Amino acid sequence: MKTKTIGIVGLGLMGGSLSLALQHTAQDYYFIGLDHNESHCDEALQLNLVNEITQDIDVLQKCDVIFLSIPVDGIIAISQNLKNLDASCTVIDLGSTKEIISTSIPQNIRKNFVTAHPMTGTEKFGPSAALDNLYTNKVVVLCDIELSGKHQQDVAIQLFTDIGMQLVYMGAKEHDRHAAFISHMPHALSYALANSVMKQEDNESILTLAGGGFKDMSRIAKSSPKMWEDIFRQNKTNVLKSIHTLQSELKRCEKMIENEEWTELNMWMDEANTLHDILD
Amino acid sequence: MKTKTIGIVGLGLMGGSLSLALQHTAQDYYFIGLDHNESHCDEALQLNLVNEITQDIDVLQKCDVIFLSIPVDGIIAISQNLKNLDASCTVIDLGSTKEIISTSIPQNIRKNFVTAHPMTGTEKFGPSAALDNLYTNKVVVLCDIELSGKHQQDVAIQLFTDIGMQLVYMGAKEHDRHAAFISHMPHALSYALANSVMKQEDNESILTLAGGGFKDMSRIAKSSPKMWEDIFRQNKTNVLKSIHTLQSELKRCEKMIENEEWTELNMWMDEANTLHDILD
Repeated sequence: MKTKTIGIVGLGLMGGSLSLALQHTAQDYYFIGLDHNESHCDEALQLNLVNEITQDIDVLQKCDVIFLSIPVDGIIAISQNLKNLDASCTVIDLGSTKEIISTSIPQNIRKNFVTAHPMTGTEKFGPSAALDNLYTNKVVVLCDIELSGKHQQDVAIQLFTDIGMQLVYMGAKEHDRHAAFISHMPHALSYALANSVMKQEDNESILTLAGGGFKDMSRIAKSSPKMWEDIFRQNKTNVLKSIHTLQSELKRCEKMIENEEWTELNMWMDEANTLHDILD
Repeated sequence: MKTKTIGIVGLGLMGGSLSLALQHTAQDYYFIGLDHNESHCDEALQLNLVNEITQDIDVLQKCDVIFLSIPVDGIIAISQNLKNLDASCTVIDLGSTKEIISTSIPQNIRKNFVTAHPMTGTEKFGPSAALDNLYTNKVVVLCDIELSGKHQQDVAIQLFTDIGMQLVYMGAKEHDRHAAFISHMPHALSYALANSVMKQEDNESILTLAGGGFKDMSRIAKSSPKMWEDIFRQNKTNVLKSIHTLQSELKRCEKMIENEEWTELNMWMDEANTLHDILD
């Protein structure tokens, strides 16, 4: 079988883990990495995440598959520069918000693109954070798939299936609304929780008492501010709506405690318990 | 060495796990369980969490050590009925709020009591949820320890050390304020997050996208409403204060996104990142 060349733009947690996952499949791949961060390039080579590094977009454009594992702004910028794509090339972006990407891709290369969002990650970043099982058994959302070429759909489906992902199909608009509730707002919440404690004078003494619940809830407050600024900006309307929903639920909880409406509070907590009938 | 008798009132997750942890030490213990829930008593016997069950408070009072691993209201109620304690008996309560307990214990048995709060748990409950390592390497807060007898202090310190816990000493008032921030408010938040999603019409479709971040943040929304109603009631003032603090942090985040103050938002997220300089 002919060796396929895979270009990976962005050699961080997502891109690096993708290479490790693909290397664990039975396929023969040659990985070409591109990253503006030179030390990430060096690290990626040392960690065998890529076979070569290029800064030349024309080298990249000759790949069979190009993954864009960079922030959304970068995805939009680079897509304007992919002017020499072969009709058989598949470009898969892994951005966290999808509508702005789906509508920004130049029309002449729209069929080359598959816009995907793998629902996975850790709070760590950089090539050294890469994990070979980051994608295993996780959901990947393929958005507006009908706008991708048939060949590109097949390639993306095969690659994500090969690395053990569960495929979910959704419109980009619907994805962004859903992602706000399930990922973006919870990140805002975790940052707010961390800051609530950090602002207390005796924060170190308070943190001595941290058990598993607090650690779990504050874990994603370690995430990269730059990355999350981008996501909050690109999905602003949905993020604000989901924050408002959370605020009104929390306000309701506060009022029930304040007014000692214990029966109502119990019912409200019972409702929250039902989440796990669906989730687990 | 003489076999020590350990009474455990409340054969749920905390009490059951305590028996398992103590059974893993080199000591020789005989466990007597007391629980109003008959099926919990049967289960605890079957799972070898206790050697015998009693419903007789006088049998309980003859134990060397009595653990009260029941909700705070129950701890206060039973402490009024411990009228025949030997001076050498050590009663250790594991309630989640401490000031109301510390001040409610009848004066004549105050020296018998050690009020403790192990900062551990899971969202599960009942004897079958018991884990032998629930307490290992976790923090236990000993409150108002100067009000306990010297013998009782020694016994409690030895027992918690034997099962691998890290001891922290604190006034009950300070504990309750700290626990509100590090445990009680985060539980309210997790319930609010779960309900924010459950109230959406397409909640099942949203939950398809749940990754590790959302799962971690909503895990404690599985917790027992009855238990948490009690905690929210007993620590009402501190819980409300910590909810207000969280609300104002979240409001700040919301306003920065709304007004597109990205530099400020970045700084705010950077501050949240610093939590993990202390926590990890």
